[in-house]
Formats: sequence, C-alpha cells, structure tokens
Amino acid sequence: MPKIFFIPQNKEIEVDKGTGILTAADQAGLYIEGDCAGRGTCGKCRVKLTEGEKAAPTSAEKKHLSATDLEKGWVLACQRTIENDMTIEVPVQKDAHLRKTSLAGGVEKLECDPIIKKSELKLERPAVKDQTADLERLLGKLGQTGLDISLRELANLPKLLRGNGYKVTAAISGDRIISVEPGNTGDQVYGVAFDIGTTTIMGSLIDLTDASIIAVSAATNPQNAYGADVISRITHASESAENLKQLQDKVIEAVNKIIKELMKETRVARDRIYELVAVGNTTMSHLFMGIDPTYLAPAPFIPAYSRALEVEACELGIKINPGGRVTFLPNIAGYVGSDTVGVILATDMDQRSDNCAAIDIGTNGELVLKANGRLMACSTAAGPAFEGAQIKHGMRAASGAVESVDYLDGNIVVKTIDDAPACGICGSGLIDGAAALLDAGLVEPSGRFVNPEEQPEKVAEHFKKRLRKGKGGYEYVLVTAEESESGEDIVLTQGDLRELQLAKGAIYAGLMILLKEAGIREEDLDKVLLAGAFGNYVRKESALKIGLLPQLPPDKIIAVGNAAGDGSRMALASKTIRERAVELPAKVEHLELSTRPDFQDIFVEAMAFQ
Amino acid sequence: MPKIFFIPQNKEIEVDKGTGILTAADQAGLYIEGDCAGRGTCGKCRVKLTEGEKAAPTSAEKKHLSATDLEKGWVLACQRTIENDMTIEVPVQKDAHLRKTSLAGGVEKLECDPIIKKSELKLERPAVKDQTADLERLLGKLGQTGLDISLRELANLPKLLRGNGYKVTAAISGDRIISVEPGNTGDQVYGVAFDIGTTTIMGSLIDLTDASIIAVSAATNPQNAYGADVISRITHASESAENLKQLQDKVIEAVNKIIKELMKETRVARDRIYELVAVGNTTMSHLFMGIDPTYLAPAPFIPAYSRALEVEACELGIKINPGGRVTFLPNIAGYVGSDTVGVILATDMDQRSDNCAAIDIGTNGELVLKANGRLMACSTAAGPAFEGAQIKHGMRAASGAVESVDYLDGNIVVKTIDDAPACGICGSGLIDGAAALLDAGLVEPSGRFVNPEEQPEKVAEHFKKRLRKGKGGYEYVLVTAEESESGEDIVLTQGDLRELQLAKGAIYAGLMILLKEAGIREEDLDKVLLAGAFGNYVRKESALKIGLLPQLPPDKIIAVGNAAGDGSRMALASKTIRERAVELPAKVEHLELSTRPDFQDIFVEAMAFQ
Repeated sequence: MPKIFFIPQNKEIEVDKGTGILTAADQAGLYIEGDCAGRGTCGKCRVKLTEGEKAAPTSAEKKHLSATDLEKGWVLACQRTIENDMTIEVPVQKDAHLRKTSLAGGVEKLECDPIIKKSELKLERPAVKDQTADLERLLGKLGQTGLDISLRELANLPKLLRGNGYKVTAAISGDRIISVEPGNTGDQVYGVAFDIGTTTIMGSLIDLTDASIIAVSAATNPQNAYGADVISRITHASESAENLKQLQDKVIEAVNKIIKELMKETRVARDRIYELVAVGNTTMSHLFMGIDPTYLAPAPFIPAYSRALEVEACELGIKINPGGRVTFLPNIAGYVGSDTVGVILATDMDQRSDNCAAIDIGTNGELVLKANGRLMACSTAAGPAFEGAQIKHGMRAASGAVESVDYLDGNIVVKTIDDAPACGICGSGLIDGAAALLDAGLVEPSGRFVNPEEQPEKVAEHFKKRLRKGKGGYEYVLVTAEESESGEDIVLTQGDLRELQLAKGAIYAGLMILLKEAGIREEDLDKVLLAGAFGNYVRKESALKIGLLPQLPPDKIIAVGNAAGDGSRMALASKTIRERAVELPAKVEHLELSTRPDFQDIFVEAMAFQ
Repeated sequence: MPKIFFIPQNKEIEVDKGTGILTAADQAGLYIEGDCAGRGTCGKCRVKLTEGEKAAPTSAEKKHLSATDLEKGWVLACQRTIENDMTIEVPVQKDAHLRKTSLAGGVEKLECDPIIKKSELKLERPAVKDQTADLERLLGKLGQTGLDISLRELANLPKLLRGNGYKVTAAISGDRIISVEPGNTGDQVYGVAFDIGTTTIMGSLIDLTDASIIAVSAATNPQNAYGADVISRITHASESAENLKQLQDKVIEAVNKIIKELMKETRVARDRIYELVAVGNTTMSHLFMGIDPTYLAPAPFIPAYSRALEVEACELGIKINPGGRVTFLPNIAGYVGSDTVGVILATDMDQRSDNCAAIDIGTNGELVLKANGRLMACSTAAGPAFEGAQIKHGMRAASGAVESVDYLDGNIVVKTIDDAPACGICGSGLIDGAAALLDAGLVEPSGRFVNPEEQPEKVAEHFKKRLRKGKGGYEYVLVTAEESESGEDIVLTQGDLRELQLAKGAIYAGLMILLKEAGIREEDLDKVLLAGAFGNYVRKESALKIGLLPQLPPDKIIAVGNAAGDGSRMALASKTIRERAVELPAKVEHLELSTRPDFQDIFVEAMAFQ
C-alpha cells in the first residue's frame, strides 16, 4: 500500500492504491478546502505534490491552475488518486473560526432556569424491618415515586449506595433520573449549546448553576468533504444508508471534538455535562439525528419531521454523561430550521411589538418578519456566496482574506484580516469590493464592469490599469501578484459580481415578499436585525449601497451577532425558553417563495445594485 | 488445541488445554445436568469418556460413582479438564419440559384488551401548498400529535411513506409509536409472555387480536450451568460485571431461542411481535435486566428495584420487533418476585372475598394468603428438593422419572413417567415415596426409617429386603438395578427424607405464620390453591399424608397449574390487568419469616410427617 505523508501537518498514512487524495486526507483527519464536493468545478482543493510521481494535468486542473503552478507541483486534490508513495503539502487556512468564536452573540445575560435539577440525598440504610428496594428508597426520599431511570443507572445503584454510605446526588431531567452520583455534586451542573452550521460548528459550555458561558470553541463542519452546500450533502446521504451514516458520524465526531476542547479548557468532567441543545438548518438536524433527508431536496421540500427531537446522549454517541439529554430544537420548514428558531428566541421576534425584520445570512439565508402581529419566515436561495463559495478567489473570513475595500479620492484601498498578505476575498470584502467599484464608477448599477476605456476620470491611472479582460469577461485586480500570499493576482470577476447580485437579489426579494404579505412598506420597518457572524463584519453602508438591505437610516440596521447560537444557549439555560422554542414552529407562518407568482419579477428587479 | 467430540449430539469443538468439560460443553451449546455449580457435591454431571486418556478418579467421583461405573468410563464433568482429544458421551434427559409446556395453566380464556393498538392510515400526499413534515403528517392523521417515536422508525419514515403510496400501519404502545409498516398490517398483532423460572423458561405466543394462545415452548434455563439455586447465581453475578453480563446473556439467548421456535411453529414474523411480558423471581428479574443482584443474598435481602421495568426490545437484544416493549412485572420483595404477582393475578387473590391460600412450589416456594381483607405473602427456604436437587437420585419430571409410589396390600408399587425404565425420582415421586413408606410403616412419623428387623408384618418379604443399610444410613430401593435405565438401584435415602422434611416443613410453617398473622386457623381456609406444574402432578392425598398441606378435605385443595405463567399471559393480553399488576406490590404485605421469633418453633414442629 502506498504511503502518504502530509505536510505541514506531518501525518503519515497508508492507503489502498487508487484512493483519492481527498479521501486519504479525510482518513488522516485533515481538511482540504473545497466547495464542489470533488466535481472539479470550484478549483479550491489545491494541494502541492512535493515528492512522488505525477500524472499529466487534467482539464479541470488546466482550467483552474496556471502553467507556473502546474510546474511547481500544484494539483487539484479531487482530480488525483494515489498510485505511489507521495508527499503532499496541504495549504492551511488559519484561524477560520476565530471571528465566529470570538462572538458571544448579542445576548449578554442568559436566564437561568435549567431543566436539569440536582438533589443531594442521604438515605436511611435498609434493615430487615425496612426492606424497601434501593430504587424505591431513592425515589421515596426524592418524593417523586414516578420518575423513570435507565437500566444503566439502575444496574449500578446497589453498589453506589453501599459504597458511599447512602449519600448520593441525583440529576433529574423532567420525569427522568439521568444520573446518580457518589456524594454531593450539586454544584457541578453543566450543559453544552451547539450551533451546527453547514460550514462551521460552534459549541459553548455553560455552567447551569448560574447560566454563565465558561468556554466557546468551533470547528469546520467536516461534512464539507461532501460539498459546501446542503444540496450536495442531501444528495450524498440519499444514495445509501452508509452515506447517511457517514455524514452523521462526521458531525457527531466534530461535536465530540469540540466538547473535548471545552472540557480541556475548563477541566469540567464529561459526566457532569448533562445536556446538549443544538440548532441548525433542517438538513443539519436530519443528518445529526441520522434521519433520511432525501425529500428535502426536490419540491415540495418535505422534512421527515418538524418537532424538537430529544434522545439520550449514548444513543447518538455524544460524549457527555451517557444519560444526558440531547435536544435538537424544532425546524419550521425544509429550509427554515431550528437556527431560525434560535434567531427568533434571541431577538425576541415572537414577543416584540414593533415592525422588525431579521436576516440571517450563513451558508443559506433565512428571513423573519414580525409585523402587524404576524410572525413570518422564509428562506432564500442566497447560496453560500457570502462565505466565499462560487467566488473565484472567495474564502471564509480567515487571516489574509480581503475584508474591506474603499474608494477614496481616486484610490481603491484594500484591507485584509490581520493585515496579512492577501490570499482571497471573504463575504464582507466581496460586498465592500462591489460597493467601492460602484463608488468609483467602474461597475454600473446593472452589475456590469464599464469598458476599460470608459472608466471615469476620477479614478487614478494606477488603479484604472487593474480593470482587465479575463477568461470570463472583465475582472478587477484587487491585490496584485507581488502583494499576495499565493503570488498570483487576487481578482473580482464579472462572474463574481453576478453571483453577488443573485445572492443579494434573492435576500432582498424575499424580504419584499414578506413585507407585501404583511401589508407594510420598507419604510414602516422599525428595525432590521442582521444575524450571523457576517452581520457583525459587513459594513451597513456597503450593504445599503449594493441594495442588499432596504433603504433605511443606518441606525435602524443593527447587527445582533450569532443569534442562532444565542438561541441555543438560551434554550439550554432556561426551561421556559425551551418550551417557547418547542412551541414556536406552530406560531410562525412559513412562506414558500417558489409558490409566489410575484417572486420572479421582484427578484429580477432586486438584482440590480441599488 | 485438543479436539472434543460430544455424542450423541455429534458436536465437535476445539478448546484450550486445561478447559473444564462443563465449560467445553457450554461452548458447544450442550447442557450437562448438575445442581452444585461444579462443586462436586451433587454427583449429577455424569458423562462417559468413550475415547481419550483418562486420569485417576477424584475423591468426588469415588463418592458418587460405583467401581463398575468408573471402570466403564463414567466421570463427573465438573472434576475434569481437557488435556487431549476426547470423545465424551453426554446423557440426555428426554422431554424434561413436556409436562410443564403441556400445561396451559388454569386460566382458559384471556381478557383481550392489549396495550398495543394498530391504526391503518392513508395519508394525503404533500404538496407545495401543504409542506407538513412526514412525521407531523402521520401524527395529524392519527389525531395524536404528542406521540413519541424512535429515531430508528423516524429515519425510515420518508422512504416508507413514498414507497407505499402513503398507506401505512402504525403500531402504538401507550404514548409511543413503536413501528410504522407498509400497507395494512392491522390483523397481525402478536406478543410473547414468559415465565422465567430458575430451572425452566417457558414462553407463549399470543395473538393479541383475540388473546388466543397460539404456541407454547420451553427450555432449560441455561444459567443452570452456574448453579441450580438462585444463591449460586447471585454469588456468580456479584463477582464481576462480566459474570453478571454472562448470566444476562444466557437468559436472553434462551428467550430468543424460544421465540424463534414459537415463530417457526406458527410462521408469525419477528417484526409483528410487539411485546414481551415476563414474570420470574426477583433474582431472575435482576439477571434478565442486567442489574446487580448482590444484595439480594445477604440479610436484609434488598432488591435493586421493585417496580415493573419496561425497556425497548433492542436495548436488551430481545429479538422481536426492535421497537417492541419488554416488561418485567414488578417484584414484591427479595424472595417474592413477579412470579408471585402472576399467581395473584391468575388466582384473583387480590379481588376474591373468601379465605384462600396459594402455594407456588418451584425451585423456591412462595405463599400468598388472602384472609380478613388482607393480602399477605412470604417466601420459604424450601430449596429445590421438589425439582430433584439435593435428592440422591432426584431429577426433574422427565421420561423415566419415578412419579408415583403406592403401598397396596403389602406391596410397594412404583410407576415412572411414560412407563420408561427408571432413571431417577421427581418431586411427586419423592412425596409419594415418603407417603407410601409411611403407609407401609417403613418410615416413622419422625422421618426415620424403621430398623430392618422392626418392619411391620404386613409388608411382603420381597419388599422388606429392599430396606438396607447405605453409606449415609438406611435407604429403600424403589427400583432395582435390573429394572433401571442406568443399571444401578434407584434408592430413597434417609438423607432424601430429611431434605423432604426440611422443604415441606418450611412451606407448612410459612403458611402457619401467615394464618397466625391474619388471625385465622387452618380450618378457616375455604381453599388452598396449588400453583406450579408440581401442583398438577402431586397427589393431594400424599401431600396431606406427609403434612405438606393443612389438614383440609381434599376438595378444598385445588391445583391451578402454572399460575405465574398464566399471570404473565393475562398481563400481556390486557391493559387493565397490566395496570393491576403494576399496582399489586403496594397492596401486598410482605412477611419476612427470618424476623419472626415464632418461626423456628413452628418450623421444627412442622418437619414431622403429619
């Protein structure tokens, strides 16, 4: 079997001949970027073969890699199988989650009223005159004889009681004893809240005695190896039960890894974590629970279930207390998931009285409107453009990503995250780039680049030269090869602008339909809340400029951070909020945009910048 | 590794050198009789080495086997390890369960009101105008939106609905959908009822659409390999978690084997069996559920739990519908188990108004008394003498067992089951034997054999000669070597009579304590019910003669068959009866005989015959 050595991670594995490089990397626990699930269309899974024989470039490689790159040994991982020993260099995208994890969200203080209750007990010892069984003795002391208990806890109860002088602590969730522990552990009650994103998974460890967030950690969703978007993953899962299991295993593994990190950071013991509450889009919730998502993809987009699902941690292999409760909050529709339930909880949309819209832009886009006493939601086919997918040099918000672009007195000024050498463009950079080029007059409101000879005088010559003819039409060089990390020009293409127009048009049109349905106009909105990490980093002015948001005074537009994640934390820490979450789907009117005859018109109109 | 060939079963296995013959037989799936868990004290695990080298006899073998037997190759399996290739003949006890399984018990017609309900459904197909999720669509049609469902059933729901034109049948147990099936299966609803005895496990397959018993099957409890009595098994289980698991696996395997036989006989499909209801003594219920029984053995005899336990079939590895419910009825005390709950249900003890006692004699003895509006129960250390343990030539009620003995005009007449050549004495033969020898004047009321020279004249010379001096005192030859299967005399020894006296004394004394506690006398009893297979075969006259039962007219003594098993069937077939079972332990006063200062006196007095 050929041996593969991955650098700079220094991981060596052996694989069967003919194994794809993506599969081999997966087996080695490495993640190679990519958006097209190995179809060879995104060109992002670049790796460098530093040692080993190499076959001639494929047509996909010729399309995405320059001659110099090909010569240096760059290939697309998805195009290559392993036939001999190889050393493969995998480019590392640094700190991709820092921005997301640094966000505690907009909710600062969680309500503390957890479902898990602990009781410290001192039982009477049994005697011939009092032969009450162990379990009934425990329940009698608790004063709750109807409580349920697992065989696992019951099996050990006799030794536990006798080994600890009949002093134990019971952890109770609802009508169930989930753990019986030696001595007094009443002060150790923890839970984890998860936001299972299509791209990023984030977990928070919460001390349930005071609802304080004591650690946060995140990781890339390793299902990424099967495609950046939910449709690719649904397609993969629908092919076989094994594939579905594979996707489920990936997300559970990632969740367990995050839990391990949270534990390491805080020294909290695994058995003292009694609950996990998760939110995510409807596809993520199906895959997490191992439930067939096949019929989410084609119209009429039917989920297998909508309700909140609650299972024992050990049933899913979630590594908290084995009797711990794992709850995925309910989804509203096929493309409006429990992450939107989380947004509604965190923004109080269901309880507020003003006219308010919330826009959650992640890998998908979901919209919620509260107006005239109605609560409505819809999803838009925004696509993952704001996370860098489908964009030529798109990337997630990580070190080196172009994050802002300004037009200032004839100059076009670019800034990257950490001021690191540029290696791509993230979502806020994309919007900023379009806005700046509009400002400069290099892009028309229709979204077309002007002809190079028609550039306005105000733009400095130096920058004018950067508008050039590329393979698929005009493109603008945001960062030159000399200044970039990769040694090639970082460009914004005509195609990129079209992707942006499609995405922002879909979101704007969705919002217009919601307003129309509610019978109010843009200007009747008291607030527009931007949820998601993206909302924190996008510049309102740029978003307004390109017409992503309704034309309102900027102070009515408020970034609320990772509201979906906030919602999961709130539902973990409070029984009342959990109950509110469970009942929410019945209170939300879901609008299916594809059934609206007026949608296409509004959408086409909304695609123009402004 | 030495090869072992077992005959007449023709099973060959390889085992490590030094493996015990009992262990090897267990690995080969064979059961060798024995009551002492390999201690070498019962002498019942006789096997014959027909090929292979053989070491000198051990002292236990010399004690239990004659010189001729030793010469022929007989050894005690528990005394031998395997060092070389061997052929081992294992004597087969034929039809040991026939008597038990042929008993449908005393309850002829079961009340039909099962917990499992089926609904045949025809759902509306989803559409863009009706995007209700699959589960909520199903629940809506059922009109029960609060029902629970397992991930297993939910995972397959989308394909199941679409693959069957949205026509499915839901099987519901309480507040839970346990199975969703293609098409109409409403006429197929089955359950199994089990009586998990220390010695014998019996299962019945019941059609829950009309509560008819459609098949019955039984097998030896393979935990037998770890001792005939519950104390040996508790001791084994308490030694390690692995041992406990081993005992649990044994009983679950046996239950699965019986289910397979029931299915084979009736062609009922596994997935159409939705429930298992079991009764058994408290130790059996702990071992079945895999719960530590350690503290049942020493005073104060505390069970881990008393309530009815209900778990999913797949959690225990019970091979019915994986979502099927497995319920072990509640136990009353450490030595009064759910088998006694079954007896109470089947005999209506909790609802009748006369003064009535029930005696269940199995491997242990339990007594129930209903008198003056009180329902009381106790257990007696009767020991398994009535199932042949501790009796020199004792055996279970199988073909060739001495089942009746009569004294008739000077002759002592012996009859075996099936009139087969005698190979031992079963419980009814033991009682009959003692009664006949009392009648003949060969045994004194104190339980002692008379001196041979003091035998009464009325006994024929021919039979007088059979009273002889044995190793442990006098013994009486019931069947001579010429007439026996084994070619050796079948005897009733002074030790056997002592065992019988201890057992019957314990039962009688227990009953006296119950009567005393209730404030009534023997003659106030309107009925005495004999439960257990034993009750059907014992002759009332003999039982009265030796003072096992209170001195009442024989028509007040009624055999009710396997009442414990009847109780499990009743609780399977009827929700109302199940609820009655669950609430029973709280209504039964348990008397712990070991705390009664008056017990020893009454016991010693009760040991005399009459």
